[in-house]
Amino acid sequence: MRTNHQRRNFLKTGTVVGVASLFGPVLASPLPEEKALEASATAVLEIIHKRRSVRQYRSDPVPAEHITLILDAARMAPTAGNQQPWKFLVIQDRTKLNELKAACLQQGIERIKKREKLSEEAFQEREQKLIQYYEKCFSAPVYIVVLVDTECQYPDYNKHDGALAAGNLMLAARALGYGTVYYTGSIPAEITQKVLNIPERYERICITPVGIPEKWPDTPPKKDLKELVVYEQF
Amino acid sequence: MRTNHQRRNFLKTGTVVGVASLFGPVLASPLPEEKALEASATAVLEIIHKRRSVRQYRSDPVPAEHITLILDAARMAPTAGNQQPWKFLVIQDRTKLNELKAACLQQGIERIKKREKLSEEAFQEREQKLIQYYEKCFSAPVYIVVLVDTECQYPDYNKHDGALAAGNLMLAARALGYGTVYYTGSIPAEITQKVLNIPERYERICITPVGIPEKWPDTPPKKDLKELVVYEQF
Repeated sequence: MRTNHQRRNFLKTGTVVGVASLFGPVLASPLPEEKALEASATAVLEIIHKRRSVRQYRSDPVPAEHITLILDAARMAPTAGNQQPWKFLVIQDRTKLNELKAACLQQGIERIKKREKLSEEAFQEREQKLIQYYEKCFSAPVYIVVLVDTECQYPDYNKHDGALAAGNLMLAARALGYGTVYYTGSIPAEITQKVLNIPERYERICITPVGIPEKWPDTPPKKDLKELVVYEQF
Repeated sequence: MRTNHQRRNFLKTGTVVGVASLFGPVLASPLPEEKALEASATAVLEIIHKRRSVRQYRSDPVPAEHITLILDAARMAPTAGNQQPWKFLVIQDRTKLNELKAACLQQGIERIKKREKLSEEAFQEREQKLIQYYEKCFSAPVYIVVLVDTECQYPDYNKHDGALAAGNLMLAARALGYGTVYYTGSIPAEITQKVLNIPERYERICITPVGIPEKWPDTPPKKDLKELVVYEQF
């Protein structure tokens, strides 16, 4: 079924191809209804490995039904005491997205001015890079802002609930063929909140584009599992 | 392919069966390598819908290879600047798990004593319930503590990174036939840290059992998508 070499290699690189097949039959559950899930298990593990943070998109539209499926996956995330404190704000209006892009760019440029003493030439180079960065950032047809309600039942757990919903959203999008990326600082929360007129009671967790990637990026370098896992005790 | 009635019903209930088939072919990507993923898309959406928070387990062991696959999925989560601040502490030692259970129970009992004036009979009833609760809580063969390193590159994003890794972990476990549950308050962080001798630099995000459920719980009541989604503006 597998060789030790293949297995070591998989553990080291997180190589996608045949993730589960390397380990032989993946299900050991004695529950009979689980026996049918073997193909699903492989699919889920592969999609988890194939999700990438995508920072440049094609302009092809995302059908409304796909957006619905993606949001529907988000709302199935675990949530403290089943509180479901989420709001998902979906933006496709190009005018609004351009406003958001302009506001992010402006703040970025002001920061460069404040933080650094640059020659005019060096400044223009930095500015140009920032413009290109935000062009790519806003190249997708759809953006979803993941918000949590600060007036919910267990607000202390909102950060968990928000990130978990965003995680489901990104995997569902990947499964449907779309890229996403969990933007936090690059598209600042306060700018998002202001430009999109988001009521104060909602706290932003992240914003993600949804769209077909210009290309799927390579897997960034990942730590070995053995660096991350501790068995029984430190 | 689908009727409006079926579709409305799906959106209302989040019914699992045939999630994607209701929407016809799920992939619209023009990238040729994505065409093969249609079955995977359905599988991923179904597994997301089938994950449940499981609070009682069978004692059947989880093979080491499955634990590896589950942790390997966790480490593929999105992470700020690719920092990967995680440590996953895997506990299977029954003596340690019993210590953790006893410490949680003791704190629970002390809290009942402090917070409420109860008759001896009422107190014993509450105590008995708590004992049963923690028996179930600790009925799984494996526990994974999800930790983040406070001395990492971008500690401000650790809560996101931690929850996202835990989300992947829970979906991979579900795909392999195992239940999980994102425990926070029920197994307090400070007790976990102390009993399991976790160095202070690691902050606990959550702890989850991994095991075959005694039974898969029903889906708890979920909010309609229309309650959670805002298109374009509030």
